[in-house]
Amino acid sequence: MNNSSSDRIVTALRDWIASAPAGAQLPSTRSLVAEHGASPVTVQKALRTLIGQGVVESRPGVGTFVCAPRTARPHDYGWQTSALGAPRHRLPHISPAMRTAPQDAIALHSGYPDKELLPERLVRTALARASRGDAALSRSPAAGLPELRSWFAAELGAAAPAGVSSPAASDVIVLPGSQSGLSSLFRTLVGPGNPVLIESPSYWGAILAAAQVGVRLVPVPSGPHGPDPGDVDRAFARTGARAFYAQPSFTNPTGALWPAAVAERVLAAVRRHGAFLIEDDWAHDFGIDADAAPLAARDDSGHVVYLRSLTKSVSPSIRVAGLIARGPARDRILADTQAEAMYVSGLLQAAALDVVTHPAWRTHLRALRGQLASRRDLLAAAIAEHAPAAHLDAVPRGGLNLWLRLPDHTDLPRLTRDCEAEGVIIAAGDDWFPAEPTGRYLRLNYSGPNPGAFPEAARIIGSALSGSALSG
Amino acid sequence: MNNSSSDRIVTALRDWIASAPAGAQLPSTRSLVAEHGASPVTVQKALRTLIGQGVVESRPGVGTFVCAPRTARPHDYGWQTSALGAPRHRLPHISPAMRTAPQDAIALHSGYPDKELLPERLVRTALARASRGDAALSRSPAAGLPELRSWFAAELGAAAPAGVSSPAASDVIVLPGSQSGLSSLFRTLVGPGNPVLIESPSYWGAILAAAQVGVRLVPVPSGPHGPDPGDVDRAFARTGARAFYAQPSFTNPTGALWPAAVAERVLAAVRRHGAFLIEDDWAHDFGIDADAAPLAARDDSGHVVYLRSLTKSVSPSIRVAGLIARGPARDRILADTQAEAMYVSGLLQAAALDVVTHPAWRTHLRALRGQLASRRDLLAAAIAEHAPAAHLDAVPRGGLNLWLRLPDHTDLPRLTRDCEAEGVIIAAGDDWFPAEPTGRYLRLNYSGPNPGAFPEAARIIGSALSGSALSG
Repeated sequence: MNNSSSDRIVTALRDWIASAPAGAQLPSTRSLVAEHGASPVTVQKALRTLIGQGVVESRPGVGTFVCAPRTARPHDYGWQTSALGAPRHRLPHISPAMRTAPQDAIALHSGYPDKELLPERLVRTALARASRGDAALSRSPAAGLPELRSWFAAELGAAAPAGVSSPAASDVIVLPGSQSGLSSLFRTLVGPGNPVLIESPSYWGAILAAAQVGVRLVPVPSGPHGPDPGDVDRAFARTGARAFYAQPSFTNPTGALWPAAVAERVLAAVRRHGAFLIEDDWAHDFGIDADAAPLAARDDSGHVVYLRSLTKSVSPSIRVAGLIARGPARDRILADTQAEAMYVSGLLQAAALDVVTHPAWRTHLRALRGQLASRRDLLAAAIAEHAPAAHLDAVPRGGLNLWLRLPDHTDLPRLTRDCEAEGVIIAAGDDWFPAEPTGRYLRLNYSGPNPGAFPEAARIIGSALSGSALSG
Repeated sequence: MNNSSSDRIVTALRDWIASAPAGAQLPSTRSLVAEHGASPVTVQKALRTLIGQGVVESRPGVGTFVCAPRTARPHDYGWQTSALGAPRHRLPHISPAMRTAPQDAIALHSGYPDKELLPERLVRTALARASRGDAALSRSPAAGLPELRSWFAAELGAAAPAGVSSPAASDVIVLPGSQSGLSSLFRTLVGPGNPVLIESPSYWGAILAAAQVGVRLVPVPSGPHGPDPGDVDRAFARTGARAFYAQPSFTNPTGALWPAAVAERVLAAVRRHGAFLIEDDWAHDFGIDADAAPLAARDDSGHVVYLRSLTKSVSPSIRVAGLIARGPARDRILADTQAEAMYVSGLLQAAALDVVTHPAWRTHLRALRGQLASRRDLLAAAIAEHAPAAHLDAVPRGGLNLWLRLPDHTDLPRLTRDCEAEGVIIAAGDDWFPAEPTGRYLRLNYSGPNPGAFPEAARIIGSALSGSALSG
């Protein structure tokens, strides 16, 4: 390598750069070699020098480019404040449940199951197969791939009692995840400014979607046995609401599975008030001691609009959900979801269908049931032993979370900070309340990474609880 | 195969089915073989008979299930009419441009390029690689994968003139397609009931998204050289609008590339009125005789919000778009897109990045340019020869479409019907007008399948035009 010849190229290129516009592409290494009669190594050394000086930048596989000059002036975006105005609805901050945790932390805050609980081999095989098929290069119909729509319909239909007609494939709309479904349902079935009943506590993503659309939440208390059907009836009568958003199977966060009698009476109230039940069957694949029993299967009068996501049980990269609705509601929802997202990647739909119709999917779900059971019991036992002040009202019969009541005077922000300082990430319960929280709660996800660390995590929570975090 | 033994199994199973609930799963083939002492072939024959009789249904890979009884009563969804009320905004029907055409038709209506114009090998390889990587099983951050955000920022930054600072990766939000971006931008930057300027004609998907959000469209005439900047200025002044939605490069449908002077004067008007320019760079990769020149690259004051989709140029299955915005607008948009869709499949993001950073991507784009040029010229020449009544104002220098003016008294619905009867699917221009169409137009996509059929298609259009389709 010849230093002076590399320096010579640097000087020549700096001259060239001085008169070139920002973003201009430098000549290729090959032409610089020819122009300067230097070796490729020398030319590359010169380019590295220029990169180090911040005047050019390399984009791998593309070439080397003149950098834009760094402007020192700070930008003034003040004019945007006037253009934007005050927000119509202030959106809640995104929940800490979506935070990416540090690698070495014990993460009990997240809403997603760990990779070891996913059907990894099935997912990879299905994606690889889909990458070779038609779906990789073609556009899906707006409502979804016909085979996947049939599958969603058949899954719900399989739970239909005698005398209740099953949904048809044409009643299914495939969505890029259930969050889009929530937004769309609040827009189309409720509408800005109008009331919608919601369990309290309930899923923070639904609370967020409601805030985005600007619907008015009407909280209905919901405990380990779901809501009191009388409360639901009275809330409908009082507010004139025409919809109730609920998670009857393994409610997030409480884990409640509505008893059949509650489900029947709520459904009766919904019918009596000419309303919709928006059933978010988020944990359909996460039954442990019980199976999810969709209310939508018992209804063929169009009162229940059903939402089932595959994202959590198949893979977070497979953003696919099915929405089932009948009657004019379906048409209005489809018009909205088309305007919002046009269509869902056919590749993801094909892969999702491939996973859930593979015989190994049933085997996986059976094994998952056992894994969730032992993780749930391990965490519950560890909390009972090491953090007895955190009270578990009911052991959930499915889902991914424990919902723990803390002493009333717990300083929740301080508790989460103290735990985090010790490497345990927890989610304070406040985000799951559509109004003021009625107590201090923690939601602990037992499907996250590293169940071996549950006792340690419980010890840390227990010590933080008995220590400084009690402000009262 | 023994007929009577197959019949015997059918009878036994019909008894069993009569007392089973709808949706119940039949015993496995193996256990039926054991139970009836029959061969698997005989059992399967019995099952096929039952399927033919409509009493059971087979779900491949899952099993055979008792069908739900067909209820004869028609459903009464009348109550939904009261619950839903009249729609706030009546959504336009989904454009015929999204129709799936019959296999053997000559399809000139669609908005998407044919598979042969896509980088098929790159896409399949990238998807296969992504299916083996981390992205297949993990959740993407809400704003997108950092590497993909950097790539979108660098692409726009590469076009920035000296003195204008490039966008940062943190200014980029990855979306599941540009349609979601349009909805989100109309919600956050405009808001229901408020005015937004739009070129006329303009992209029907934007008109649809505007209707969904309920913003008020203010059409600004736009021809082969884009809009008149004076018109833009006056429309801002007259309506107090704070945003202008436009496609400065290869406008859909007209194909216009705004001359530099028009772009500068429009940008000046946008700044003067403290407004946003929503720049939809839909055809960034579809330059033919000219390159797309994003206005957003010339602005670092947050006035231009930039939208670029990879869906059309990479693959319809890779629903990935980048939105670039600076200042508080970015934060407000991100809050909205999170509430709407949470995050975009990391698998699709990883595959998209893999495609666009591969050296073969540049090679593909160069070849694509040539293919689009010859398809465009072939269709334009065929129309000039065989359908001279269809007038092409200007040969587009990029994009996917010819925009043809028809005689004023053309009966468009009849023309499209007549062409379709002869196997040519065309899109009437009306859907591209935010208000009443100012004339009769056709949008013909030259990037669809089968350019060899262009002369034949032109002949059919010409004969339909000169025939009965002229109502005047």
